[in-house]
Amino acid sequence: MSDVTIGLVGVGKIARDQHLPAIAATPNCRLAAVADPHAALDDVPSYANLDAMLDAHPEISAVAICTPAHLRYSQARAALLRGKHVLLEKPPGATLSEVEHLITFAGEQGVSLFAAWHSRFAPGVAQAKQWLAERQVQRVMIEWKEDVRVWHPGQAWIWQPGGMGVFDPGINALSIATEILPQPFFLRQAQLLVPSNAQTPIAAELAFTDPRGAVIEANFDFRQTGPQIWDIHIDSDGSRLSLTQGGCRLEIDDELIIEAEEREYPGLYAHFVDLVANGRSEVDVAPLRQVADAFLYGHRDTTDAFI
Amino acid sequence: MSDVTIGLVGVGKIARDQHLPAIAATPNCRLAAVADPHAALDDVPSYANLDAMLDAHPEISAVAICTPAHLRYSQARAALLRGKHVLLEKPPGATLSEVEHLITFAGEQGVSLFAAWHSRFAPGVAQAKQWLAERQVQRVMIEWKEDVRVWHPGQAWIWQPGGMGVFDPGINALSIATEILPQPFFLRQAQLLVPSNAQTPIAAELAFTDPRGAVIEANFDFRQTGPQIWDIHIDSDGSRLSLTQGGCRLEIDDELIIEAEEREYPGLYAHFVDLVANGRSEVDVAPLRQVADAFLYGHRDTTDAFI
Repeated sequence: MSDVTIGLVGVGKIARDQHLPAIAATPNCRLAAVADPHAALDDVPSYANLDAMLDAHPEISAVAICTPAHLRYSQARAALLRGKHVLLEKPPGATLSEVEHLITFAGEQGVSLFAAWHSRFAPGVAQAKQWLAERQVQRVMIEWKEDVRVWHPGQAWIWQPGGMGVFDPGINALSIATEILPQPFFLRQAQLLVPSNAQTPIAAELAFTDPRGAVIEANFDFRQTGPQIWDIHIDSDGSRLSLTQGGCRLEIDDELIIEAEEREYPGLYAHFVDLVANGRSEVDVAPLRQVADAFLYGHRDTTDAFI
Repeated sequence: MSDVTIGLVGVGKIARDQHLPAIAATPNCRLAAVADPHAALDDVPSYANLDAMLDAHPEISAVAICTPAHLRYSQARAALLRGKHVLLEKPPGATLSEVEHLITFAGEQGVSLFAAWHSRFAPGVAQAKQWLAERQVQRVMIEWKEDVRVWHPGQAWIWQPGGMGVFDPGINALSIATEILPQPFFLRQAQLLVPSNAQTPIAAELAFTDPRGAVIEANFDFRQTGPQIWDIHIDSDGSRLSLTQGGCRLEIDDELIIEAEEREYPGLYAHFVDLVANGRSEVDVAPLRQVADAFLYGHRDTTDAFI
């Protein structure tokens, strides 16, 4: 397998916390340079923008895009135009329409486009999907409750259009649910609680169903203090599957099946290397579509300003 | 061509104003019965619900769904399950995810599904599309301004989630733009003006671009008094195309090309009969996706209560 030589765009928190260590840990994958107008790395060639980086490093075969969502389309398009494979941090764009166009354009350019949903690489997800594949689901309860002050300190973008508020973590839950549930599901009702000084919700209650009438509920909350909750419980034919701790722990009927350390991003980069090697793309818009549906069809209520 | 025998669900304003006369005027198309829990027709067999109508009229081969958007999915699914072709009034659903499932399900059932965007059948649309097909577009200005009190008297649903507010007419403009523009386009910025007592916008300013950098703007406004405006102006390579009066009038470089009476729904039903005869489906989600993108990515400001 030939190496994937990566140029990374957007040296922010997620790049430093996750992408850089994951690239370093992934076989057949190496970092050549980074681009960011406001940040540089001591030990890696750093450029102010994507074009300067690609001009200086023709050996770069793939670009990983970790900038804020509303910048991703134009950067991804520029990279695809230069024949580079592209990995998009989640969500793959600020809008569905721009992502649809990137899918078309990557196909025309004959390169790989990967919309990375990192939570799908949590330890218990693959086995949960396999267990559910042939089953009838009656009830799903998704609880995704975390303290925004702990996980997103000072990240004002999360309250702006495109930042998605509590759907920024919530889309991780939706990326798991759309992966493991054996039927597609769709919103029936949503309540979005929006701080009076914000554009995006701080909490959301969602009720979905699927073609077989399953009851699927999700509660997202950014105001959680104390224990943090990233859990999905699924009742199916008299059994209960619980995928908890963000997918690190899988129990079926109270029996522990998997409990493992989180290694999502190494799994994600290994998968990207594999996609590139096989000339494939993978862009599932379903999680972002669910969020857009909630904004389109949800009922908004205003709550206290977020300070 | 064998006849398409139609059962219509939802006998509201749009059914009476448009669907019933159009079905009567369309060759190879006839109305067998209607279903509505709150309304009946004097001269057509009327039932309280879809299943009762289909039980009593096995000759019905296709169902036209004119109920509020949030009811469409379950009715469409029930009709598809019974092997009926389905025509969906616009928008094809309350959410994108449910429409995606209907597309899959119609394919599995081997019947035709038609998401009807009536404005695409306006007199000037086909020729505008043809003229634009090989051109480079520099600038598009969409103005869709109507008086909600005139066109939607007492329709409270329009201010509720799923009612889409000014995007209820605005999606007609978007259905034309997505049809005639030679490149896909996507939102860059949106301002949504929402009355303090409503869930959906009364006005919206949208800025889009396309892969070639065209400047595409849309202004939707429900507060228009005096002359009503449903216009699209497109600057392309030194020429200007103007599709005005909702698509009834087409001018290119100030020369009148087409001016004709609105006959959208007869065109729409003729196309449905054609789709059924050829075993085809046609569901373009692009207009609804643009609206979802605007709700997802738009900046909301509150304005005076709507009374």
